[in-house]
Amino acid sequence: MDNAATTKPCEKAVEKILEMLTIKYGNPSSLHEKGLEAEKEIELARTQVAKMLNANPKEIYFTSGGTEANNIALLGGAEAQKRRGKKIITTAIEHSSIYNSAIQLEKYGFEVEFLLPNSTGEISVNQLSRAIDSNTILVSVMMVNNEVGSILPVEKIKDVIKEKNSPAILHIDAVQAFGKLEINVERLGVDLLTISAHKIYGPKGVGALYKRDGVRISARTFGGEQQKKLRPGTEPVPLIAGFGAAVEKLVEQKDDNKKISFLNRYLREKLLKMDDIIINSPTSAAEHIINFSTNKIKSETMLHFLAARGIYVSSGSACSKGKKSRVLSIMQLPSKRIETAIRVSFGRDNTQHDVDELLAALKDGIAQLTHI
Amino acid sequence: MDNAATTKPCEKAVEKILEMLTIKYGNPSSLHEKGLEAEKEIELARTQVAKMLNANPKEIYFTSGGTEANNIALLGGAEAQKRRGKKIITTAIEHSSIYNSAIQLEKYGFEVEFLLPNSTGEISVNQLSRAIDSNTILVSVMMVNNEVGSILPVEKIKDVIKEKNSPAILHIDAVQAFGKLEINVERLGVDLLTISAHKIYGPKGVGALYKRDGVRISARTFGGEQQKKLRPGTEPVPLIAGFGAAVEKLVEQKDDNKKISFLNRYLREKLLKMDDIIINSPTSAAEHIINFSTNKIKSETMLHFLAARGIYVSSGSACSKGKKSRVLSIMQLPSKRIETAIRVSFGRDNTQHDVDELLAALKDGIAQLTHI
Repeated sequence: MDNAATTKPCEKAVEKILEMLTIKYGNPSSLHEKGLEAEKEIELARTQVAKMLNANPKEIYFTSGGTEANNIALLGGAEAQKRRGKKIITTAIEHSSIYNSAIQLEKYGFEVEFLLPNSTGEISVNQLSRAIDSNTILVSVMMVNNEVGSILPVEKIKDVIKEKNSPAILHIDAVQAFGKLEINVERLGVDLLTISAHKIYGPKGVGALYKRDGVRISARTFGGEQQKKLRPGTEPVPLIAGFGAAVEKLVEQKDDNKKISFLNRYLREKLLKMDDIIINSPTSAAEHIINFSTNKIKSETMLHFLAARGIYVSSGSACSKGKKSRVLSIMQLPSKRIETAIRVSFGRDNTQHDVDELLAALKDGIAQLTHI
Repeated sequence: MDNAATTKPCEKAVEKILEMLTIKYGNPSSLHEKGLEAEKEIELARTQVAKMLNANPKEIYFTSGGTEANNIALLGGAEAQKRRGKKIITTAIEHSSIYNSAIQLEKYGFEVEFLLPNSTGEISVNQLSRAIDSNTILVSVMMVNNEVGSILPVEKIKDVIKEKNSPAILHIDAVQAFGKLEINVERLGVDLLTISAHKIYGPKGVGALYKRDGVRISARTFGGEQQKKLRPGTEPVPLIAGFGAAVEKLVEQKDDNKKISFLNRYLREKLLKMDDIIINSPTSAAEHIINFSTNKIKSETMLHFLAARGIYVSSGSACSKGKKSRVLSIMQLPSKRIETAIRVSFGRDNTQHDVDELLAALKDGIAQLTHI
């Protein structure tokens, strides 16, 4: 139940990766048949990913993952738009790959405003509306927060940008939303959007940046002619093709989200009945993520207790490796809640039985472990 | 016979990748068992790669490939050293990921000197010695040229840097040398060194940057805590473990290079006897690469003729997708030689029979195709 950290690649993705490694192993830039067959697989995956976002295949650029796509969007976007203004709007609860890129932009002389969430990790349209102005060149907001699952009002941002006569381009980090919520780049009016394969039962090491045709951003990497020079380097064909296969499987398995929705309600109900436990996720959160605090047992102690029973959850973002959560801190939760937080994140293979096991283990842990 | 473009992943690498995708699929940053088992595989691969370079495992940083490693070395190296001087020395025959990064550095205000090769793609120690001075902060030279196979005098550069009292750090792009020539980072006295997995029968999408402990370079990507923040983002465990497995296989198959050496001599001898054909590679070139010109048939025409017989070679770097070769142009070859160039690059699976087939097809092509 740590699927927000990563997922198990699905069989279709694994099969495709294997085919690319053993049969279609050519360099997609090679002019001979071995190159062309590899290139075709990249184009197929590009089409599969684009379709899922209602984008045009030529608007999809494969990257080494969500972190790289977010970096290209933020640093490459700001660089290309810098003549129009200095202001960048983002939130204080973004993934570290946006948050730390934004801090880097401050060092380069940009003015970055980090919108603060409420106590359930939510950001309002009004906050965005107050922040965005005619000097704003880039707005970057995540669709679903990775620690508490809060859903941010990304579908309203394009209208605010227009109302304010802002030249800003809009980037959405959709890593935790992809495959869970519907993402339609046309309806969102988004210019840039980030997704990652390993959160949707695809392989680690590949993500994608959607870039609306015509939107100008600067490359962060320089080299060969691949991917219109925005992201050069020999394409990792096995990963890209595996990503495409995982997306295909998402389309087929539409019932996954119904199941996860049920598990969410089930866990929520049971947690609400447990003394001391407080749910940190808002009720409207994306259903694959529930963050709660035991208020009694330190996160790491509880994680080890649960792990000993074969139950794998997390205390927050995997990328921060057990450090105190920036997201929960900025939500201004009491320190006891922050120090005892647990993130459960469901995937397609989880069952009601898993939740029952978790609940039993939580009760035992609270009873048996030394309270803080 | 296009193994300088890419290689077929070896069975050991494929098996390892499959294991990581289906069993050890955890996020290596996760604190539970699924994370730890993935992290262990990364550390094993780090050790395998380090051993092959005579480096310390902590000096190995995994990247998405040679292009990213070269970008980090050049752009991150120049950024970190910029207070010491403005001058950067490289060559005009580097891979596009160095060449285009160097051009980018010129835009940032650095002075880049591109050393010119002789007519066989070689650069002398004297050229390096004349160029490097006390204002030089970074020297980046490839070990083996990817188009003609020329071996550059990288083992002499550290001494020149010392003689000249230069503060320069030294980067070597060893992508085409790794697995072919011995690389000992201690003996080379190198600060940074780039290698790639897919040139040594490992997967596409992963490379490594060796960074001597204590050498300061700036990160190019910002995000989580992974890889000491020099290269954040969830590590692509299957690729990294597959890279390690491919390196292990290299160590076992020491005879590969003897076989390639034989194929090189065999092809060379036969080519020398053919009218019109001129070999562009120096006699001292790395033995897996032979570049020659037919002087009669345009490269692309000949490539298609050979491909129709199942013989896959290239006209130069795959990354430039059939564009006129910068390397051959800067070697000041007559345009007829540039336009009719063919690069053969051997791998461990090539046989004498393959070379015979190539030679027969070349003869037929020269006889049958319309001469330029």
